[in-house]
Amino acid sequence: MTTTNPNLKKLFVSDTFADMIKNKLMKKMEAHQASNPQKELYIMAWGDTTQPLAPKVVDALVDAATKLGDRSTYTGYGEFDGNIKLREAICNNYYKPRGIDLKPEEIFVSDGAQSGTFGLQDLFGLDNVIALQDPIYPPYLEANLLAGRSNIIYLECNDHNNFVPDIPTSKVDIIYLCFPNNPTGGVATKEQLKAFVDYARSHKSVIIFDAVYSAFITDPNIPKSIYEIEGATECAIEVGSFSKTAGFSGLRLGWSVVPCALTLESTVAGELNEMFRIGQSIRFWGASNLAQQGGIAALSEQCQQECQEIVNYYLENARILKEGLEAFGLTCFGGTNNPYIWVKGAEGMSSWDVFNQLLFKAGIVGVPGSLFGPSGEGFLRLSTLCSRENIEKAIDFAAVVGNRE
Amino acid sequence: MTTTNPNLKKLFVSDTFADMIKNKLMKKMEAHQASNPQKELYIMAWGDTTQPLAPKVVDALVDAATKLGDRSTYTGYGEFDGNIKLREAICNNYYKPRGIDLKPEEIFVSDGAQSGTFGLQDLFGLDNVIALQDPIYPPYLEANLLAGRSNIIYLECNDHNNFVPDIPTSKVDIIYLCFPNNPTGGVATKEQLKAFVDYARSHKSVIIFDAVYSAFITDPNIPKSIYEIEGATECAIEVGSFSKTAGFSGLRLGWSVVPCALTLESTVAGELNEMFRIGQSIRFWGASNLAQQGGIAALSEQCQQECQEIVNYYLENARILKEGLEAFGLTCFGGTNNPYIWVKGAEGMSSWDVFNQLLFKAGIVGVPGSLFGPSGEGFLRLSTLCSRENIEKAIDFAAVVGNRE
Repeated sequence: MTTTNPNLKKLFVSDTFADMIKNKLMKKMEAHQASNPQKELYIMAWGDTTQPLAPKVVDALVDAATKLGDRSTYTGYGEFDGNIKLREAICNNYYKPRGIDLKPEEIFVSDGAQSGTFGLQDLFGLDNVIALQDPIYPPYLEANLLAGRSNIIYLECNDHNNFVPDIPTSKVDIIYLCFPNNPTGGVATKEQLKAFVDYARSHKSVIIFDAVYSAFITDPNIPKSIYEIEGATECAIEVGSFSKTAGFSGLRLGWSVVPCALTLESTVAGELNEMFRIGQSIRFWGASNLAQQGGIAALSEQCQQECQEIVNYYLENARILKEGLEAFGLTCFGGTNNPYIWVKGAEGMSSWDVFNQLLFKAGIVGVPGSLFGPSGEGFLRLSTLCSRENIEKAIDFAAVVGNRE
Repeated sequence: MTTTNPNLKKLFVSDTFADMIKNKLMKKMEAHQASNPQKELYIMAWGDTTQPLAPKVVDALVDAATKLGDRSTYTGYGEFDGNIKLREAICNNYYKPRGIDLKPEEIFVSDGAQSGTFGLQDLFGLDNVIALQDPIYPPYLEANLLAGRSNIIYLECNDHNNFVPDIPTSKVDIIYLCFPNNPTGGVATKEQLKAFVDYARSHKSVIIFDAVYSAFITDPNIPKSIYEIEGATECAIEVGSFSKTAGFSGLRLGWSVVPCALTLESTVAGELNEMFRIGQSIRFWGASNLAQQGGIAALSEQCQQECQEIVNYYLENARILKEGLEAFGLTCFGGTNNPYIWVKGAEGMSSWDVFNQLLFKAGIVGVPGSLFGPSGEGFLRLSTLCSRENIEKAIDFAAVVGNRE
């Protein structure tokens, strides 16, 4: 009998993140809008970018598209591990200025962090113990469940530990860390990351480090890459993205670093890097050539300032929103070095209570923290990757409602 | 102990297709070039497109890139199952003219057939018996091995059965079929495909049908889609691509059809479609928005003729090369309704012998058929997706060498 994948079947009958957004959050939002057609909604639910690409990136995309229309400059398949100029630019313009020395063959270009992180799983056995931050971006958990990994422990992140978990108390094999964090807005200091790197090195564990929000770090004491920690190339894989840094969320471009120095007890130096290359050659035929040309432009010296201005715009959004909500009496975390604000509801309120409170009172739509894991209960995630207008109108409205009560 | 994926490890220590190309074929080619620096090489090894995009596609890409630079027209994340306009265009402009009625929710846009086909595996259990054409595009086999499927049978394709296999003699669960075929150049008639559909329906098996070369079919009696066969939506998934049809090999765009009517013994109508949607939401965040805008343009009525001209160019390449090689005394298959020519070596010659013969005598570089599976032994695959100049110079040179001996 032809069988379905039992792991996918389990996910199918449970509530995945995508299901919860579509079937619960969207429906509540639409119902509210239908009963209050005169009220404006200020949607801060999605981690989706809204500001245009940097002019130099657009120029590069137009130029690359035009070249595809000319026989003498047309190109077909690229390398499945990515355009060498892009991989060199990631090494030289992203990592080197941070004092990190990586080689292009350690970089694997992906079509974004979602597929990039999913693909990394191929490297590892199903018997590994997986440690996940709680709360966490749910597809990380779901990807492991889909693969058939069931030995999962959660590292609690809450306002008592400033959203940076303690190192595991038992042996875990693979540790997912995301800093600056989605959804909590937390960041980790060098010392905090060093404790994880030391743990991983001594236990021969692997850290999968999601650094997709690195561009939002303005504090010089907060590392933008796990490789700023000594010894991290021996134990950590890093996932980067152009989505939030340069507005490529629709263009789809990211990368994974699998350092040659990374080893497990059972592998020699370079082996995991080469194994990942083999897996990628089977799974994927490279990111879109246009997106890659855009990525090369985004990393150029001339363009980095343009991209940083986009990030600064969102950071200013976050500052304004956080101040505004705090003035309205709400407890907020994150929002500095990070585009997310993690709103804590009053004592006894569930995440959906906070969701309803902000939706009904101020028309603000966030994502209930409980959708990101049990430790997210009582919180609401607000994304400030929206327009300034959205932020300012939401604050005005929230303030009016606040004063009125 | 942190473990590696044993399936990937096995592939790592064996010779994958990518390895064989890189470590053996490329090295032989480079060595020949180094010892014969005055000789030109005519590379027909890669299934890679060389002709520029259609002008209307370039216009659409330039327009879409420009819009990403304007705040009022910028877009971020798209739908993970694909732009609805693209899915509608695939239904209305690709399938409907062939008398096939599919709904947009049955189409899942991918970043090309390689990842698209890889992702389809998530639907199925590891215990299924997999039937593969032999020879076959190797990543289909490797993807199943990577997932951990070991129950694989091969359906022999050779000049005795005109490269269309007989239906399986025992029960198999999942059957991969690729027509027009890579690498053999074979095509299947309606009657031949009907035999497979009838088999799959009566055995509750699933056909995964690779139709990425459909645009090369000029014979009205050869189906371009498995869904031209009655009942195929009950038993077949189809994979399509813009790579060869419209020159998108570098842009990366394709689609998978998971019909709502497709059922297994253990599923109800619509369930596999919905399960695949869940898997995709975990694995992938959509194809590049620029590639998708290009795809919408490529499928527009005005542009289809421009795209067909590119295909016709390659088909004319194939006609010229096949005639030329046959005049030189070689036995060739394929090359009509298909851009691949499958050269059969003289009695007793291995695929590498044929490779060496064409390389040493005429400077023509193909891919040894044995790399595609045991039944490919003795053959060589030539791709005519190259320039006309390459084809004509190769023929001239082959003729000179031929006459000289």
